[in-house]
Amino acid sequence: MYSHVAAALLESLQMKTFSQVRLVGGGIALVLALKGAAVSGQDPLPRVAPSPTGNPQTPAKIELGKTLYFDPRLSADGTVSCNSCHNVMGAGDDGRSFSSGLRGQRGGRSAPTVFNAAFLSVQFWDGRAPSLEEQAKGPLINPVEMGNKDHAQVIARLKQIPGYVAAFSRAFPNSEDPVTIDRLAQAIAVYERTLITPDSSFDHFLRGNRRAISAQAEAGWKRVQAVGCTSCHGGVAFAGPALPEGTGFYQRFPAYPGTEYERKYELSKDTGRMDATKNPADKGFWRVASWRNVALTAPYFHNGSVATLDEAVRVMAKTQLNKDLPEAEVAEIVAFLETLSASPARTQMPILPPNPGRAVVDVR
Amino acid sequence: MYSHVAAALLESLQMKTFSQVRLVGGGIALVLALKGAAVSGQDPLPRVAPSPTGNPQTPAKIELGKTLYFDPRLSADGTVSCNSCHNVMGAGDDGRSFSSGLRGQRGGRSAPTVFNAAFLSVQFWDGRAPSLEEQAKGPLINPVEMGNKDHAQVIARLKQIPGYVAAFSRAFPNSEDPVTIDRLAQAIAVYERTLITPDSSFDHFLRGNRRAISAQAEAGWKRVQAVGCTSCHGGVAFAGPALPEGTGFYQRFPAYPGTEYERKYELSKDTGRMDATKNPADKGFWRVASWRNVALTAPYFHNGSVATLDEAVRVMAKTQLNKDLPEAEVAEIVAFLETLSASPARTQMPILPPNPGRAVVDVR
Repeated sequence: MYSHVAAALLESLQMKTFSQVRLVGGGIALVLALKGAAVSGQDPLPRVAPSPTGNPQTPAKIELGKTLYFDPRLSADGTVSCNSCHNVMGAGDDGRSFSSGLRGQRGGRSAPTVFNAAFLSVQFWDGRAPSLEEQAKGPLINPVEMGNKDHAQVIARLKQIPGYVAAFSRAFPNSEDPVTIDRLAQAIAVYERTLITPDSSFDHFLRGNRRAISAQAEAGWKRVQAVGCTSCHGGVAFAGPALPEGTGFYQRFPAYPGTEYERKYELSKDTGRMDATKNPADKGFWRVASWRNVALTAPYFHNGSVATLDEAVRVMAKTQLNKDLPEAEVAEIVAFLETLSASPARTQMPILPPNPGRAVVDVR
Repeated sequence: MYSHVAAALLESLQMKTFSQVRLVGGGIALVLALKGAAVSGQDPLPRVAPSPTGNPQTPAKIELGKTLYFDPRLSADGTVSCNSCHNVMGAGDDGRSFSSGLRGQRGGRSAPTVFNAAFLSVQFWDGRAPSLEEQAKGPLINPVEMGNKDHAQVIARLKQIPGYVAAFSRAFPNSEDPVTIDRLAQAIAVYERTLITPDSSFDHFLRGNRRAISAQAEAGWKRVQAVGCTSCHGGVAFAGPALPEGTGFYQRFPAYPGTEYERKYELSKDTGRMDATKNPADKGFWRVASWRNVALTAPYFHNGSVATLDEAVRVMAKTQLNKDLPEAEVAEIVAFLETLSASPARTQMPILPPNPGRAVVDVR
């Protein structure tokens, strides 16, 4: 396991900067101290997301997953869908510091964008879900998100809706009892693997159109490598190296403690990955966030405490690299990050199957 | 005014049943006592909704209206869009007794479906908005719905979003200052006039396909006329006669007070139209609700107190006509009402214009 992960890491990163990197996969944790760095070569975002064996993409599953994704009946009181916090008509997030779950309850972390989550090897800010499939199950039974008492409650409701029983049967043929929580999660994950944005200006630039981005943005691209940002924000999603699904790429944030930013934005109030593992060694570690669409997903950081992208760049340079960037360099980096914005292909709205003649959400 | 309204009423209804009817238009109220009834002839839902002079349908306006309709940034905290309570992927409503506004606040009445609202001559349960345009402005500044302190707050936020400024300019060319609350309302109303369902089974039946509905449903259609339901639920939307925009068709509900249903479902707790007019004569009066898609919009009535359609039929027969219907007749009527279900044409999801690099909803 060690050699497998280390090889994947080194191959992808070709690291040169000193950095404390924590990798966790399948219960095995390891810490590597690495030296030196500069990303040599950068691949554009693939036009197809990686897909795990056992859950291939099919049109029937994508359509079912999209329908479920938009259906507020997946929440206990019928008010919250996946799309409520991860709005695919916007930037795949909700534009808020903390999300609003059922009965207006506030979540504890800022909703990450669903766009390109398919390229992350673990999910949630603390990496506690090893796959999109596992991630999809979490909010359903989180009391401040969708608030079901258990997954059985969700499935029992879906079974009352004839259109869902039919849609699960189409998506998972040859199943005697097609409506299950695992299949619900598989369908949603399959839909999420279509929510990718490989047509950003920067991807066009990487594919050979040198005029797809401005001179300032190109200077910003060089700057993020020279300054050291890309030693963590590498890979096609700028979220770290390509690692096997379930193996996370974590960093301490803030890496340099005691800054004014840390105090002002309360960056250390949340213990990060330690909250998931209960291991004190994980305190302050976080999954490295993707830069994809970062210009569209203000406010920033796990607590959504920073309202603007330029300030987020200053915070990261100071807390992670102990650098006070000149404003011209901040502007270059912002110009570069803006080239990573794009929307997924437009698709039709789903039609949520009705519950004819009978309310399925508790009446009053 | 009297003769105009009365003529429209009589022409549309060809009334024969005794009924207390209250019409209110342009501040003038009148009460007509009418006798006898049976709807002769029934037109299918037109394929195009009526459109007021001064706000014609255009593709740019429809697209802008759809985008605004889905944008939660129209609410103070970025959590509630028009679609949150009037979900056009579902039946145009939210399937709940009372809607959930920002910070989980509960509204006081059940959200009516937006589908075919374009065929109603007044909006809201109490008819307090004379048009779709006026309706659209209400929830924006309702403290338990979208919670903006005034319309200026909404417009100031939209002006921070470059894509909206451009979209308003396209939708309202030749305007020096295109982003205004009236144009926002016009765009949303134009979009809502596309949310019509003229392809229900019953419309196909009315257009000549006699096999489009079952024998039981056809018996139900005869039953609702014979029992007297259609003396109020007439017109193409089964919500009353065609009246000029702004002129409402109201009925007392319950018409026969003191039933067990009234007590059980608290039908008289809300004073209805009196709440809007402050006129005691309007106590217990309500806009006659449409039957279009009624089978898809449980739970029922202004307070969403009745979970099933068959029970809603029993309640209406008893409270409005003082009749205890045999179960076979209830089943016929339900079968007929189910033939009024349909979805609007599927369309693409809008793309909500981004607010690049800066949060527009208050951070934390």
